[in-house]
Amino acid sequence: MTIARTVCLGFLALILIGTILLILPFATNDGSWNNPMVALFTSTSAVCVTGLAVVDTGTYFSFWGQLTILFLIQLGGFGYMMTTTFLMLLLGRKFDLKQKFAIKESFDRPFLQGSNSLVVSIVATTLFFEITGIFLLLKVFAQEYGLSRGLWLSIFHSISAWNNAGFSLFSDSLVAYKSSWLVNLVIPGLVIFGGIGYQVIIEFYLWLRKNISRQKRVFCFSLNFKVVISTTILLLIVGTFAFFLTEFNNPATLRNLSLQDKFLTAWFQSMTTRTAGFNSIDIGKMTTAGLFITMGFMFIGASPSGTGGGIKTTTFRILLNCTKSALQGKDDVVLYQREVPSTLILKAIAVVFGTAASIVVVTILISLVEPNLVFIQIFFEVISAFATVGLSTGITASLHSTAQLILICAMYIGRVSILLLIAAFIGNVKPTSLHYPEENLLVG
Amino acid sequence: MTIARTVCLGFLALILIGTILLILPFATNDGSWNNPMVALFTSTSAVCVTGLAVVDTGTYFSFWGQLTILFLIQLGGFGYMMTTTFLMLLLGRKFDLKQKFAIKESFDRPFLQGSNSLVVSIVATTLFFEITGIFLLLKVFAQEYGLSRGLWLSIFHSISAWNNAGFSLFSDSLVAYKSSWLVNLVIPGLVIFGGIGYQVIIEFYLWLRKNISRQKRVFCFSLNFKVVISTTILLLIVGTFAFFLTEFNNPATLRNLSLQDKFLTAWFQSMTTRTAGFNSIDIGKMTTAGLFITMGFMFIGASPSGTGGGIKTTTFRILLNCTKSALQGKDDVVLYQREVPSTLILKAIAVVFGTAASIVVVTILISLVEPNLVFIQIFFEVISAFATVGLSTGITASLHSTAQLILICAMYIGRVSILLLIAAFIGNVKPTSLHYPEENLLVG
Ligand SMILES: [K+]
Ligand SMILES: [K+]
Repeated sequence: MTIARTVCLGFLALILIGTILLILPFATNDGSWNNPMVALFTSTSAVCVTGLAVVDTGTYFSFWGQLTILFLIQLGGFGYMMTTTFLMLLLGRKFDLKQKFAIKESFDRPFLQGSNSLVVSIVATTLFFEITGIFLLLKVFAQEYGLSRGLWLSIFHSISAWNNAGFSLFSDSLVAYKSSWLVNLVIPGLVIFGGIGYQVIIEFYLWLRKNISRQKRVFCFSLNFKVVISTTILLLIVGTFAFFLTEFNNPATLRNLSLQDKFLTAWFQSMTTRTAGFNSIDIGKMTTAGLFITMGFMFIGASPSGTGGGIKTTTFRILLNCTKSALQGKDDVVLYQREVPSTLILKAIAVVFGTAASIVVVTILISLVEPNLVFIQIFFEVISAFATVGLSTGITASLHSTAQLILICAMYIGRVSILLLIAAFIGNVKPTSLHYPEENLLVG
Repeated sequence: MTIARTVCLGFLALILIGTILLILPFATNDGSWNNPMVALFTSTSAVCVTGLAVVDTGTYFSFWGQLTILFLIQLGGFGYMMTTTFLMLLLGRKFDLKQKFAIKESFDRPFLQGSNSLVVSIVATTLFFEITGIFLLLKVFAQEYGLSRGLWLSIFHSISAWNNAGFSLFSDSLVAYKSSWLVNLVIPGLVIFGGIGYQVIIEFYLWLRKNISRQKRVFCFSLNFKVVISTTILLLIVGTFAFFLTEFNNPATLRNLSLQDKFLTAWFQSMTTRTAGFNSIDIGKMTTAGLFITMGFMFIGASPSGTGGGIKTTTFRILLNCTKSALQGKDDVVLYQREVPSTLILKAIAVVFGTAASIVVVTILISLVEPNLVFIQIFFEVISAFATVGLSTGITASLHSTAQLILICAMYIGRVSILLLIAAFIGNVKPTSLHYPEENLLVG
């Protein structure tokens, strides 16, 4: 438990330091002492890379306040990516020792040579993507706002996108850029690579390097890579069509756009919902069907060892294949010629059951505190907080402070509970009598 | 697949026969030909023992129409109870042949001597409970409505309660009897015994008989019995307190009642939500929190081999213990000193995943058909239809006919999908290398 416990306390410490910094007068635009509740909410939202906001980040906070928020996002996102990857490495080793059949597995992971180089490698990956993002976004923002303001906007949105934080300096998020091809490619690019996880990126990089240098060595993608890539692509496509179809006739969102912009906006929404939290349409004006679909995608979320939240694509895929197996009357679950170990199935159940139960309890609590609010808005807000998405129908700022405190807890639990679960899983995993080669896969 | 397929077609045939009968002029109170849509909806709702209604059963239908509905309820409820029990028997035999360690199991089930006596035994059990219910309810209804009307009311409500159908001849269901101790004990008694399943009842009966005749033979309750009884009691208690607390201050439901009536009404609501569908408070006026809790309990539902719906108490319990195991870092799931086989875990996942996915899809479809309806009402209605509960916030009758058709499909799928799943499961179950005695348990 020690690693995860350390990380949980680390997140908590970071939130408290952030809160204190954001209370100080230098952080606000008008130079006054900040409301402690606003500071706590913003700091939690930044550290947990959620993106829910009770004030308008772009106008309420000074440059220094915004910089503080950006640091909190960067540390929170990096910390999460680092920890989940490190825990997965530990998990892999544990399995390697126990499984005689899984020689294949260690072969699948040439990138996990040791934890020493892990920090350096993750920092390098992060910087590579963020700096690329800044340069590309500068083209759009410098043109519109001049070089210095444009640079700041590019830095902020690039870091926010890579960390799936969803914080924006524009009060309407990215609604103004719904027709910009560059913004609709760069932001999703950062969000998707950030959310797809370090392991997948590094595997893709190794594969690229092998092909370019024409090495003779056999290269196999890991199960994690195959599951994450196929599930992510599937969800992105399904999401784009779902939003296109449900919002097609809604005058407040897609109806008055050209066909191309309709697709671009639906694509952006499909990408941002799991779990970036930017928006290029007004979430509060979406149709009921569109909102409900959004909730489903928020719940699923991004992929393990990335910066995003939710139950994760791998968990979703395992449960989908469990259902398929049960319908076919089989008693094993196979993913790409690998049997899914029963421990992973239990963990997938725990992630979903735990998240769903937490969402239900918190929704009930906020409904009791705010009896006059519409149910769908509360439910949406709670799922958004737990899955660290940050989309909102617009009720966050007007919530009673008790409800805001509950949301703060929800954001924190939504971020760290998975860590505790993985740690519990690593701590006591026992050797089992295997009858088929199994391969390891991170869920949650 | 043949058994389940036969049953699915049987249900469909029964619905069609019921629809034709309810279209005929003899069925309606005013003697005119009935609207086919109303007839189809009512017939489906009766055969699937759901209880959702687009018209007021007590005033819209003639005595003969009501009698037809009662027959449909009785055949639908009996057919479901019979089929699930029979399939579980088959499942038990399959496991007996395959599991050398599970000698205990066949010993646990002295009541499954053969399928010949099964029909007789289920009919006898049904008649025993329904007739007892009729006599007890007669005390209340005869006093108020005279003997002949009172007898009809008693027969109708007793059969409706035993089958967890939720149809009532009173337009406000049982709101008028919220303070009546007799109604608040007899109806819940019928509902709970009907929903707890034939297997549990017969085991309880055998245990009683053994204790009365003082046999020396060892008697062990089955895993199914222990899980169903403990989970049902737990859910009933949690539900009573949840409704008591969330509705305590709601002037439209509990606030103006005495403390005793508050508890009585909360208890009734806790019992009826999984999955009887009667109500003694106005569902449409419940708080948001109360409605959301109701949805959760509706989703869980009753127990296998009974007349109720939902994902079933056993499924819920298995997933709860999977979560517990994962949190403890264990790789097996144990319930009362029995390991839960991995096939059952897969099936539990399939039941929940399938039900949840169906609910999401149907909710989206109805949201698209009825864009102006409030989300919580649609969501509530759809869960109620899938779990064959029949509670409604009051929108059923005013729904567009397309939405009503979708609900009809939802009621039917909600009832028969579990059968198909069990059948698929029985059809292909393969021997596995066991390392621990496992015991069989029905989910869904
Ligand atoms: K986010
Ligand atoms: K019902």
